[in-house]
Amino acid sequence: MATGRNHRPATRSRGIPEATVARLPLYLRALTALSERSVPTVSSEELAAAAGVNSAKLRKDFSYLGSYGTRGVGYDVEYLVYQISRELGLTQDWPVAIVGIGNLGAALANYGGFASRGFRVAALIDADPAMAGTPVAGIPVQHADDLDRIISENGVSIGVITTPPGAAQQVCDRLVAAGVTSILNFAPTVLSVPDGVDVRKVDLSIELQILAFHEQRKAGEEAASADSGPDPAAPPVRAATSSRKGPDGDMPAVMPA
Amino acid sequence: MATGRNHRPATRSRGIPEATVARLPLYLRALTALSERSVPTVSSEELAAAAGVNSAKLRKDFSYLGSYGTRGVGYDVEYLVYQISRELGLTQDWPVAIVGIGNLGAALANYGGFASRGFRVAALIDADPAMAGTPVAGIPVQHADDLDRIISENGVSIGVITTPPGAAQQVCDRLVAAGVTSILNFAPTVLSVPDGVDVRKVDLSIELQILAFHEQRKAGEEAASADSGPDPAAPPVRAATSSRKGPDGDMPAVMPA
Repeated sequence: MATGRNHRPATRSRGIPEATVARLPLYLRALTALSERSVPTVSSEELAAAAGVNSAKLRKDFSYLGSYGTRGVGYDVEYLVYQISRELGLTQDWPVAIVGIGNLGAALANYGGFASRGFRVAALIDADPAMAGTPVAGIPVQHADDLDRIISENGVSIGVITTPPGAAQQVCDRLVAAGVTSILNFAPTVLSVPDGVDVRKVDLSIELQILAFHEQRKAGEEAASADSGPDPAAPPVRAATSSRKGPDGDMPAVMPA
Repeated sequence: MATGRNHRPATRSRGIPEATVARLPLYLRALTALSERSVPTVSSEELAAAAGVNSAKLRKDFSYLGSYGTRGVGYDVEYLVYQISRELGLTQDWPVAIVGIGNLGAALANYGGFASRGFRVAALIDADPAMAGTPVAGIPVQHADDLDRIISENGVSIGVITTPPGAAQQVCDRLVAAGVTSILNFAPTVLSVPDGVDVRKVDLSIELQILAFHEQRKAGEEAASADSGPDPAAPPVRAATSSRKGPDGDMPAVMPA
């Protein structure tokens, strides 16, 4: 553990816990924002707050990268952006295929945040023959019949599924058969894949849920300041639930376990 | 700490660390998948693995909810879904307005995952007069000139911004002036808001970054099994980078700190 700043043990990438891997993009997002504001260094406390993580955990996470910062100065923002990008594999080019070019597929094809992270939209695929050849974000849509060839010709290892839920498993099977080993699934369904294939499911409501927590708390604080009665049986969340939204908030206080 | 299973201290919701709040939707997603498969109970280890979190941390997180599980049995899936939903405020109705009805706005309007979490798309708003009255996901688009009235009439406290980046700050200012206190920002720009307003920025590339990490590691394992030379100066990530992608992988091994 007590190694120097630039020491890189050979087991580094394999030894990183999954939970740390999941936090690296959050650090990278916060660091990129600092970099855009030309901030040269950042303390573990500031960066932890920006990433929504506790600072002791951040230091532990960064120790897996061999990055220890400098006491009294903090972490070098640009170097840490580079280190995390390298660790995540973002310093290489990842050709991505998007299957299902409805609103969401088209939105992702146009999404600037992919290209800036090393993800290049190499192919757009749809089952509707009427869409074949239509350019979306400057890329002509290709027909699903040619999926195998498209994946192999473009060296695609990451597939993005934005089809309706009923089509997602079949598309997933075809992508895997064509050699894709990572699937990003936006369809609201659970996919089965063989060993060796990674699937991540995107839930666009996650951030909304975190906002809802804070909205509820704000409403609870308003209710608490309006009602100063010391009633330990009515915690803030209940107050918020019942004071704000009427009948929808009328949930039982305790459900049978 | 050593309170009973259903004990709910009055300070419960205010005392939950931000990092725990951010993990609650991940637990909820994993629990919902178990619930859909009619799994009645889950151990902390299984649930932690499904949510991508370490199990000691999960138990700590759940202790803030007053949920301690039962030794040898684990956690009751349905009850935990209810507890987390209540804690996040998802047991009440949240009217949401989406501003900017391009591909992404239309995709979100049609997104089933919002409604199932208590988020009701109450209004769609766009600056293009030609879109006014056009139904998207069954909801007529309204013109941005009426933003104040729309927000207030629908009791919207959460606004979703899916405009081009250049319009996002102005839309944000107007939403806040109209009474919105939480903003979900999909536009690739940083928004300034007054105290008391929460902003969360969605980065659709986060999950892709986690997939890239695993793709890189898989490639590194292939490279390592092909090349058995014991060279501690060439850790797996470097091997993966340089063996797989050619010139793009040609990064310096160590950058100046």
